Amino acid sequence: MKDKKEIPFNKPYLTGKEVHYLYDSVSSGKLSGNGKYTKKCQNFLVNSYGFGKCLLTTSCTDALEMAALLIDIQPGDEVIMPSYTFVSTANAFILRGAKIVFADSRKDHPGMDEASIEKLITAKTKAIVPVHYAGVACDMDVIMDLADQYNLFVIEDAAQAIDNYYIDRTGNKRALGSIGHLAAFSFHETKNIISGEGGMLAINDAQFQERAEIIWEKGTNRSSFFRGEVDKYGWVDIGSSFLPSELISSFLWAQLENLKEIQQRRTEIWNLYFQGLETWAHDNNIGLPVIPSYSTNNAHMFYLVFENIEQRDSVIKKLKKNNILAVFHYLSLHKSEFYKDKHDGRELIESDSFSDCLVRLPMFFELEDSQIERIIKVIKSSI
Amino acid sequence: MKDKKEIPFNKPYLTGKEVHYLYDSVSSGKLSGNGKYTKKCQNFLVNSYGFGKCLLTTSCTDALEMAALLIDIQPGDEVIMPSYTFVSTANAFILRGAKIVFADSRKDHPGMDEASIEKLITAKTKAIVPVHYAGVACDMDVIMDLADQYNLFVIEDAAQAIDNYYIDRTGNKRALGSIGHLAAFSFHETKNIISGEGGMLAINDAQFQERAEIIWEKGTNRSSFFRGEVDKYGWVDIGSSFLPSELISSFLWAQLENLKEIQQRRTEIWNLYFQGLETWAHDNNIGLPVIPSYSTNNAHMFYLVFENIEQRDSVIKKLKKNNILAVFHYLSLHKSEFYKDKHDGRELIESDSFSDCLVRLPMFFELEDSQIERIIKVIKSSI
Repeated sequence: MKDKKEIPFNKPYLTGKEVHYLYDSVSSGKLSGNGKYTKKCQNFLVNSYGFGKCLLTTSCTDALEMAALLIDIQPGDEVIMPSYTFVSTANAFILRGAKIVFADSRKDHPGMDEASIEKLITAKTKAIVPVHYAGVACDMDVIMDLADQYNLFVIEDAAQAIDNYYIDRTGNKRALGSIGHLAAFSFHETKNIISGEGGMLAINDAQFQERAEIIWEKGTNRSSFFRGEVDKYGWVDIGSSFLPSELISSFLWAQLENLKEIQQRRTEIWNLYFQGLETWAHDNNIGLPVIPSYSTNNAHMFYLVFENIEQRDSVIKKLKKNNILAVFHYLSLHKSEFYKDKHDGRELIESDSFSDCLVRLPMFFELEDSQIERIIKVIKSSI
Repeated sequence: MKDKKEIPFNKPYLTGKEVHYLYDSVSSGKLSGNGKYTKKCQNFLVNSYGFGKCLLTTSCTDALEMAALLIDIQPGDEVIMPSYTFVSTANAFILRGAKIVFADSRKDHPGMDEASIEKLITAKTKAIVPVHYAGVACDMDVIMDLADQYNLFVIEDAAQAIDNYYIDRTGNKRALGSIGHLAAFSFHETKNIISGEGGMLAINDAQFQERAEIIWEKGTNRSSFFRGEVDKYGWVDIGSSFLPSELISSFLWAQLENLKEIQQRRTEIWNLYFQGLETWAHDNNIGLPVIPSYSTNNAHMFYLVFENIEQRDSVIKKLKKNNILAVFHYLSLHKSEFYKDKHDGRELIESDSFSDCLVRLPMFFELEDSQIERIIKVIKSSI
């Protein structure tokens, strides 16, 4: 019954150094935030991806909340984002009083349809929040042009997009999260690079860099004080406790040190899925992930798009019967119990379609080639 | 020069089991929030202290923010709290639009003067936030009576008050944090029980227990779903990612297992300070911590109150010269750069006095008797 061994949907990968660095932070006695490992991680991320500045946070949700504070969202301000996203993308702005204007997904991809954004812009629009779904880039040139034209902020929800790139119209490769005014990343255990719970705010627009640090430090100018820039520190602004413990950042450091190895194996897995399913998918009218020409692939996720919810559910069931855990993903936020009465009534058919038809396959560093073959075999036999 | 070895103000104490439990959580592969150790900690806290329900959070700040969401603070609502407190006590409510009405401290203690509260209550008052400074209880009977009379919520800021008790007018010993409708605790590395960064919300009023879990889980009914109470989960409310990683809760578990041992040693240290300084303080008109008859003592902090800022600063300087780190504490929030123009102009002289005159002495589990003697000796020689 070897064949029946369960394949989980996700399994956090430990590089082996996590416990070592955890132990180092524990024995150093500095366990609160903004210590040695926090700085190591932040410097690594800035240097690797060209972000203006990085601040680790306790979650991507918290990074998005920092962004909402920084752009000074006021009650009634409108924020445009896809309906096919995680609740935190919306909640972070709703907590500041924003009205969410949901955009539909592209037909070929769950990412927000860039061509649909302009007609959603009103005098109240304050920001656009592109979500790089599955780590795949939104068309940032289009979005940044709109932001320039209408004087809007762009906050990249890069929760899934670590180590991925957008190729702009001049052919430049730009790291996702380095393009918008601000960007939020996740290191939740389901992501490529993890720290259990955790996140990071990239602050690319220099006007926000000083205040970001203050908001991160509970509304105090403590960081500035420790750099000797002010002679005492106190309460100067709103803020929260966004910074994670060194327990979190020391763990994250081990992951970042092994980023290349992690990305390489995930890419192999992604390619094995793609090659194994390509012909079958074409023959059966099943959608595979689309990587647009302006995006590289960070192999965060491998998904299939079925023709309807019944077909999708039957495949999930068949996989489960074979001890393989595959899962659907977001439910359109504009149809949620919380927001359906606040939404303006527009139909967002692509978002609904991805809610019904998309399924994510097991994807984690330690997934073996033989397991991938087994998964592909079960999928092919189920239609 | 053995005598000159530095005595830090704080040193996080590790019981020895932290790395063991961290390793267990790491190797279990469940690193995100709400796993085994989170539940162990929450159950322990509920069972030990009679809280209605407990939810671990990434910080005490976050627990206070959850409280502000739960009592549905709206712009213009007024919240009464001491001026002599940490910025997060105020910011958590300001983020929801509250106006803070600052109360003065007692003359004999930095805690809020209970007798001053009633005249601060208006038709807009929504909540009172007593801060159990140094872990010492506020007079909760007085505060709860006011809350009943004026229909207000009471949120205990119990950041420093783990394992401490209020003796009510009927002689019952009630754990701090179990009395108000809600209470926020901190496990920051400077507290008695630590997890680097970390906190906990106690939810004593049953009306908030279901919604607290939803807000904690990013505004979704995910917890309810996993208990089989609803057949799918989705976005039902505002919320954030308040729950900490299992890395944090596994660490905390080791601390909670050793709570008695930790508290015993801290109490010994506190008593050594008190006995060593009592006569000297009396003779020199220096204030020592006051533990009112209605409070027990969790030995969170040992402080002295000098006659004026010059005397206080000179003692800190003298201690520093002798390689002993003692520190002052809060600056009155009503005089802060952020709030001075928003404050209603009332003088809060006791709060200002504690800002100027209070100094906290080194206080940590591993502080040795001989070090305490050395500290006392230097203090006595400095006046």
